[in-house]
Amino acid sequence: MIKGVHEAAYATIEVAAASGGYKVFVGPALLASVPVVVATYAPARRLAVISDDRVGLIHGETVVKALRDAGHDITFLTFPEGEASKTRKFWSILTDQMLEAGLGRDCAVVAVGGGVTTDLAGFVAATFLRGVPVIQVPTTTLAMVDASVGGKTGVNVRNGKNLVGAFHAPSAVIADTEVLGTLDSRFLAEGIVEAIKHGVILDEEHFLGIANTTQELILADPKESAKFVTASVRLKSQVVARDEFERGLRHILNFGHTVGHALEAAADYRLGHGRAVAFGMIAEARIGERLGITEPKTSECLTDVLAELVDRTALEVETSTVLGFLSADKKARAGRARYVLLRRIGQALDQGGWAREVDEDVVRTVVDEVICGW
Amino acid sequence: MIKGVHEAAYATIEVAAASGGYKVFVGPALLASVPVVVATYAPARRLAVISDDRVGLIHGETVVKALRDAGHDITFLTFPEGEASKTRKFWSILTDQMLEAGLGRDCAVVAVGGGVTTDLAGFVAATFLRGVPVIQVPTTTLAMVDASVGGKTGVNVRNGKNLVGAFHAPSAVIADTEVLGTLDSRFLAEGIVEAIKHGVILDEEHFLGIANTTQELILADPKESAKFVTASVRLKSQVVARDEFERGLRHILNFGHTVGHALEAAADYRLGHGRAVAFGMIAEARIGERLGITEPKTSECLTDVLAELVDRTALEVETSTVLGFLSADKKARAGRARYVLLRRIGQALDQGGWAREVDEDVVRTVVDEVICGW
Repeated sequence: MIKGVHEAAYATIEVAAASGGYKVFVGPALLASVPVVVATYAPARRLAVISDDRVGLIHGETVVKALRDAGHDITFLTFPEGEASKTRKFWSILTDQMLEAGLGRDCAVVAVGGGVTTDLAGFVAATFLRGVPVIQVPTTTLAMVDASVGGKTGVNVRNGKNLVGAFHAPSAVIADTEVLGTLDSRFLAEGIVEAIKHGVILDEEHFLGIANTTQELILADPKESAKFVTASVRLKSQVVARDEFERGLRHILNFGHTVGHALEAAADYRLGHGRAVAFGMIAEARIGERLGITEPKTSECLTDVLAELVDRTALEVETSTVLGFLSADKKARAGRARYVLLRRIGQALDQGGWAREVDEDVVRTVVDEVICGW
Repeated sequence: MIKGVHEAAYATIEVAAASGGYKVFVGPALLASVPVVVATYAPARRLAVISDDRVGLIHGETVVKALRDAGHDITFLTFPEGEASKTRKFWSILTDQMLEAGLGRDCAVVAVGGGVTTDLAGFVAATFLRGVPVIQVPTTTLAMVDASVGGKTGVNVRNGKNLVGAFHAPSAVIADTEVLGTLDSRFLAEGIVEAIKHGVILDEEHFLGIANTTQELILADPKESAKFVTASVRLKSQVVARDEFERGLRHILNFGHTVGHALEAAADYRLGHGRAVAFGMIAEARIGERLGITEPKTSECLTDVLAELVDRTALEVETSTVLGFLSADKKARAGRARYVLLRRIGQALDQGGWAREVDEDVVRTVVDEVICGW
């Protein structure tokens, strides 16, 4: 008899959504609860389990076995690991494989993996027969604290990251913090960067909590991991609940991402998301400092903490390429990128709107500076 | 000064939707009202106007000129005419062209054309930067009474029609019935078939009204056209308002389409949608008759009216191919297609659900029979 997931979880976070809302279960050893979560929140006999070809061999197989044992008919699909697979091509291939397998509207998708998998499989679910349910099973810190919560799905295209996609709220999210122990420290660190972002824009205490436990988190200490994933998901879910479709407040979650995404695109996606966002947060904090909006020393405070998590050496990108991608950013209006700026650590700035244009000279100067390392 | 669209329209139909609902404006000479509708319901300075390369030269140009005169910055995109363009490929191309043009989240899409255009451009809008508003400007009877109302968007794939897509309610729909006069009679007839379907499943009077004015409608008589488009949109919108995401009642709109879509796929989409649906409605009426569910003579009554609209001679498709596509239908569960059956003309049958499985032998016999002509 499978233990109820509510009892098994360290914490359960409710996320409000237009579709009716969903729960995020956080805690160790939750992969075993996937069948009971499917049965409760996306009851379908036939399931497509989607993973990349690395995670698939580890956690994908575990989830597939648990679901088969529970009597589900499983179509197990994998795609090549890495951001380079988050494309319309693999979205098409996965969709066609589900159709070939004869899956219909009564199926559901279970996405097991990092942010690439949750975004890609989420977009497959969003558009398969005009939408079937998806259960997100994030296996990286990044996907746990960010990608799998909030319903954003999508793929990258030549012009930039996540430019094609859909809002498709999951039916439930299962974040098994025990799997973090199987990650290498780079992946762990990437996710911690997103969690730091939640603190930087919303909650100084969360920021300081992470800053003081960085080493435990990199070592995937079970107790600290469950605690920080829970706190971070709670912060994000509060924002998403108030503005699911990013018409206002949700823009603040893009802090560090306007420059970060442009850096990733300029590096042809050979740059980890966490590292890109770390560079992006420092750049956007410095933009705010230069404009006299952000408290002095904010970016210094950020560099101190982020240096423990990512490689701070120079990036192999050209400033002009980065600026080109910035003007094609999806938050851009009339070709001009928009930036979320900080008041100070723990508080993004509302200036009658959460994102604003910035003079291109300021952006150029800061990007020039930041890509040389910090 | 542009006349208010409410005064200009023959009728305005309100469609309820989760997104807040939208209006369908029906009447002659409404293309001139596109700018005022955009300004009211999807206020964006930058617009992508999407048409096929035939309609684009006629009505697309008219709409573009009106919008440019009103001060909009227009990216005018066309794709090759025909169902063969309703693919992921053209969805990708149109999306990339919008990105190349620097369009951002503050843009909107205006789709000008038949069902292929409203479905394809609607899917582009649904997924562009995770969704931007779309104004539908249908220019065929089919698109006016069906495709442009209800928010279904999507593309065809190898496995069948409309298998990939999204629900994306339009911000407004503008059905200028005067443009029907520029259509050839085949296109006119195709749309009338969908309108007949609305009568057959919901309203005998509407069915008889069309049956008695078929000739006027084929000649695009302005008064009769506005009247029948209005009545048909009203019927469809009542269904969509009650079940936007096709969880129950909306299934009845698929009457004739389970077999119809399989016929189109089996003919490699070289079969007009209206003709396919006509064959499909006759097949599905006969299935109901064979099962003793549908009143006898119902399919005869249908053939009498439909024979005035479409070519009733044999189709060049194989029964086995059609059955193969039926098992991959998106309404299929566990590989078994589901059919909407009639009680009689004007009433679809609710058997604790609007779609049901049917013994494959019955389907095979009827498909065998119908594809030989009627």
